[in-house]
Amino acid sequence: MYQSTSLTMQKIELIPNNTLITETPEEGRQLAVKMARLIIKLTQPDADKRTEQREIYANDPIMLIQIGQTVAMEFATISKANNYWK
Amino acid sequence: MYQSTSLTMQKIELIPNNTLITETPEEGRQLAVKMARLIIKLTQPDADKRTEQREIYANDPIMLIQIGQTVAMEFATISKANNYWK
Amino acid sequence: MYQSTSLTMQKIELIPNNTLITETPEEGRQLAVKMARLIIKLTQPDADKRTEQREIYANDPIMLIQIGQTVAMEFATISKANNYWK
Amino acid sequence: MYQSTSLTMQKIELIPNNTLITETPEEGRQLAVKMARLIIKLTQPDADKRTEQREIYANDPIMLIQIGQTVAMEFATISKANNYWK
Amino acid sequence: MYQSTSLTMQKIELIPNNTLITETPEEGRQLAVKMARLIIKLTQPDADKRTEQREIYANDPIMLIQIGQTVAMEFATISKANNYWK
Amino acid sequence: MYQSTSLTMQKIELIPNNTLITETPEEGRQLAVKMARLIIKLTQPDADKRTEQREIYANDPIMLIQIGQTVAMEFATISKANNYWK
Repeated sequence: MYQSTSLTMQKIELIPNNTLITETPEEGRQLAVKMARLIIKLTQPDADKRTEQREIYANDPIMLIQIGQTVAMEFATISKANNYWK
Repeated sequence: MYQSTSLTMQKIELIPNNTLITETPEEGRQLAVKMARLIIKLTQPDADKRTEQREIYANDPIMLIQIGQTVAMEFATISKANNYWK
Repeated sequence: MYQSTSLTMQKIELIPNNTLITETPEEGRQLAVKMARLIIKLTQPDADKRTEQREIYANDPIMLIQIGQTVAMEFATISKANNYWK
Repeated sequence: MYQSTSLTMQKIELIPNNTLITETPEEGRQLAVKMARLIIKLTQPDADKRTEQREIYANDPIMLIQIGQTVAMEFATISKANNYWK
Repeated sequence: MYQSTSLTMQKIELIPNNTLITETPEEGRQLAVKMARLIIKLTQPDADKRTEQREIYANDPIMLIQIGQTVAMEFATISKANNYWK
Repeated sequence: MYQSTSLTMQKIELIPNNTLITETPEEGRQLAVKMARLIIKLTQPDADKRTEQREIYANDPIMLIQIGQTVAMEFATISKANNYWK
């Protein structure tokens, strides 16, 4: 579909199961975390480097906060998609 | 459900009581703070390190501001889920 | 309600009067500022340190901008809660 | 109304004319800029310091970008309040 | 309309054609870029300095990312105004 | 349409196929990534420099996180445009 652009894209699955719908808020939150991680995987495909980087994230307070903001953004979208599991 | 991905996830509860619904705005705000903290816990599972890091956050103005932004984002979602407690 | 988590929380009021509803946009904006400040108070409970930090914020342009972003986020939620005071 | 909290607040008007409603998108955009500036004024009440700081903003690319983000956030709220001037 | 405040504002047009409505998503995206640039122009009115700054943006990865975030924010508003061109 | 402003714009396509509508969440996510990249391309048109910069992004944890935030923002808009593929 997007082959008309000059952009290439890694062939990794960016949204597990290709749906934003989850059964519970907890699963929706886990999906938010996974979607955030998969963008990092797309940008840095080397698994060893990602392992190194996760050590850096985990020990740097500002990065921990920023990861929290990323998850909050993804979760906002997932929550709406699920009508807040009401 | 997500075992088809190569991502592993800590087995911690990311949303207390597995619901975004709270009785009051005050409880919704507390939930926003907890959800933000639980993402930090997921990323940095070592309790001693988190205690050290909280000392850093509390004394660094830019981190305090960024924590505020994270809470604001989580609270936006929780507020909508509760129809603003109207 | 949240005692099943291992998170402790300061016993401070995070939302004055426990409502997002205000009579006017101006009061809504003031509430946004207060809610943002109360998250800082939660994270840094020492009043003297907060006074020192406010001196830092007020004299650091990037922090002033970031405070503005925090208020904008809180105000977005408050404005929706009040249906934009229409 | 908020005197029950220990927070003090400068007596400045945070929202000109106490309304989010404007006649045109252009006026809505100007209101977004003003609301962003008034939060800076609230946090740094000294006019001379603000003049100095504006010189810093104007010459620092990352600050210019961040100011743009602040205005975008305020404008999102104002646009909704005005139903996008449709 | 805003002369009752002490804020002065450059007399530049902040929203081209004074409307958020565009015919296509592509034009909406271009409008998002322009609206973001016009806030920079408002804050830094000197054209020569802006030219210098654009060289800095274009060669600094974090600034490129931040510009992307600004455009994403403006585009969110424009997209809603146009009901996503559906 | 925008020639009345003094802003010049690269003649590149900012939204592939000029639509926000995709068949699946996965394609919507890919579109979010592409839209984010095209803003970088607009700001830094030199392909060799972009290749160098992508090496920098991929190896800098804070940049990886910030890229994730940009994609999350674009995806929020695309998801709404598609009514969350429900």
